[in-house]
Amino acid sequence: MIPSKRSAVAPFIAMDVLSQANRLEREGRAIVHMEVGEPGAPTPALVRAAAAAALAEGRIGYTEALGIPDLRARIARHYGERYGVDVPASRIAVTPGSSGGFNLAFLALFDPGDRVGLPTPGYPAYRNILAALGLEVVEIPTGPADRWQPTPATVAAAAGDKPLKGLVVASPANPSGTMMTRDAIEALVRHCRAEKIALVMDEIYHGLVYEGRETSALEFGDDVVVVNSFSKYYCMTGWRIGWMVLPEVLVRPVERIAQNLFISAPALSQRAAVAAFDATEELERVKAGYAANRALLAERLPAIGLDRFLPMDGAFYLYADVTRFTNDSVDFARRMLLEAGVAATPGPDFDTARGNAFVRFSFAGTNAAVAEACDRLGQWLG
Amino acid sequence: MIPSKRSAVAPFIAMDVLSQANRLEREGRAIVHMEVGEPGAPTPALVRAAAAAALAEGRIGYTEALGIPDLRARIARHYGERYGVDVPASRIAVTPGSSGGFNLAFLALFDPGDRVGLPTPGYPAYRNILAALGLEVVEIPTGPADRWQPTPATVAAAAGDKPLKGLVVASPANPSGTMMTRDAIEALVRHCRAEKIALVMDEIYHGLVYEGRETSALEFGDDVVVVNSFSKYYCMTGWRIGWMVLPEVLVRPVERIAQNLFISAPALSQRAAVAAFDATEELERVKAGYAANRALLAERLPAIGLDRFLPMDGAFYLYADVTRFTNDSVDFARRMLLEAGVAATPGPDFDTARGNAFVRFSFAGTNAAVAEACDRLGQWLG
Repeated sequence: MIPSKRSAVAPFIAMDVLSQANRLEREGRAIVHMEVGEPGAPTPALVRAAAAAALAEGRIGYTEALGIPDLRARIARHYGERYGVDVPASRIAVTPGSSGGFNLAFLALFDPGDRVGLPTPGYPAYRNILAALGLEVVEIPTGPADRWQPTPATVAAAAGDKPLKGLVVASPANPSGTMMTRDAIEALVRHCRAEKIALVMDEIYHGLVYEGRETSALEFGDDVVVVNSFSKYYCMTGWRIGWMVLPEVLVRPVERIAQNLFISAPALSQRAAVAAFDATEELERVKAGYAANRALLAERLPAIGLDRFLPMDGAFYLYADVTRFTNDSVDFARRMLLEAGVAATPGPDFDTARGNAFVRFSFAGTNAAVAEACDRLGQWLG
Repeated sequence: MIPSKRSAVAPFIAMDVLSQANRLEREGRAIVHMEVGEPGAPTPALVRAAAAAALAEGRIGYTEALGIPDLRARIARHYGERYGVDVPASRIAVTPGSSGGFNLAFLALFDPGDRVGLPTPGYPAYRNILAALGLEVVEIPTGPADRWQPTPATVAAAAGDKPLKGLVVASPANPSGTMMTRDAIEALVRHCRAEKIALVMDEIYHGLVYEGRETSALEFGDDVVVVNSFSKYYCMTGWRIGWMVLPEVLVRPVERIAQNLFISAPALSQRAAVAAFDATEELERVKAGYAANRALLAERLPAIGLDRFLPMDGAFYLYADVTRFTNDSVDFARRMLLEAGVAATPGPDFDTARGNAFVRFSFAGTNAAVAEACDRLGQWLG
């Protein structure tokens, strides 16, 4: 058998690093994990209790493709409570993680050959899913002048003469950790509306903002696709559960594709996720831990030579310029894992053009782990 | 926003019927569910205990994209125990249900425009996923002469002058419930090898065979992709957990795509599924219930006029010819749900050409539910 051409997508390097780090651990090495964007904290007790209750009932069956009504309603209510936006439950699609949401959004919006804009650096799975689905990725380089986020001007410049069919933007973003201002989001929504570009907003890091307050693209209209997940703020990565907010016109197309592609999101995860919105006290304590990690890194890394990194507005990433030490961040990350036992993800995962200069550190682990990483890096780089 | 052309895939009618049946239940109607291929029995106690133990540990994180090593090893061992086939754990990919497996297999094997053969009647998601991924479906009509399964001759006839890149076959099959003989599977494997057709075998109904014994395509070589799942025999539908056995050459392509498309299968489901292979005693009791349902239907349906149906070799489906009552099985199924409170899936879900003559009844529910369905259908059709 011969693999397809499209199976030659790039690997998700962070997952390869995870795999290698786990292998080293099985061999007895102690590894500090900063490679995957994953909370070190357990899933909130309330959420686990809801799962345990569902488990005790015994039957864990398929659900409707768009999710159980309770969860769709609870997510809809969240938009009123958090953003003051009225979203009916009928526009919510529960998905197998935000990964499932992107797959559904891209299939429902784009046909093979369509051009879709992606700011760089950015989450590699966007690019790789788009490529696997036969879509043309149009890179939109970002930089410090625009807080490493796209603007109408940079989007238009990247599009050139050929119109974009879609644009995928995250705020706060991965790996940069930077957040668009309210005005910047509004400008982008208006630009996409005017240019008939389908805007897919990744709001997965909402809830994890350290200064200021995040804005949902839904505050400026219904004609955006918002993708979100219980993985990050809600500490539910392994549950594979997320959601989308859809314009009415996309609900049935997404439902049809989801029926065929997934049948439904995991049922136990759906039942558990209903309780996630009540776990705020526990989750805010976890977030306070990230804030402490963020402060620790901002204090200690410059002292060991890692003094250039992007502003950590939100999420739990520090995207560090490592050109003081190397011009090959892949090799740097490999040696860091093997020699210092610190796993982190090299920049080419996020930015094929400029990634060799960067390494992404996730600070979603425990304070002790982050402190240990600083100690190890200090010794290793010293 | 405008939906993509490819989002115009057919709905999975069984899921639409489920959705409508659930709505009727919320309005207070008592519905007998025979629409979805889903065990009525709870997930085995041993499996739920394993999930509860994992839940108590608290952290439910991402896993390696191809699955946790324990589960991959346990699945590999199963092939030795059940089929006497030696499969290394490295060739096992754990997937989010067989749905995830098909998506990965099709992306890893086929490029847009490739022709893939599908026997009809057949599971609709094959066709719909292939269509969404830009692949050309070549229908291979089957009939009673070949036990409603494809043969080298019918595959070659359907392909005509243009070669097939792939072929997707299930045995036991959905909706027909028929099973290929050992010789028929061997002949098909050899034909595909000779014609360079990538054979994807859906073995999801293995374990649910009422007469004879099922054969894995892996008994005839490594050059097939086997897709399987914990959903059916193991009673784990809502857990969204399945697996593939891959030729070595496809392992890394599938891993790369899975990293991007899914990150990983649900972690709790993976931990739980390891215990599924030890739950044989409970699962064989469940299977005995299906056998009793099958005997009850075979006895009672002919008396109420549903006397033509396919041989129920395996799975838990009765595919009934309803032309004595209607030439529009979609309308028949809708009235049956509304008037008799029995939910079943009309044939066009499985066979666009001949489906109007058929309705699929799943007998995976309780004995009481199947008896109740017979009573209701007797009254309604009488």
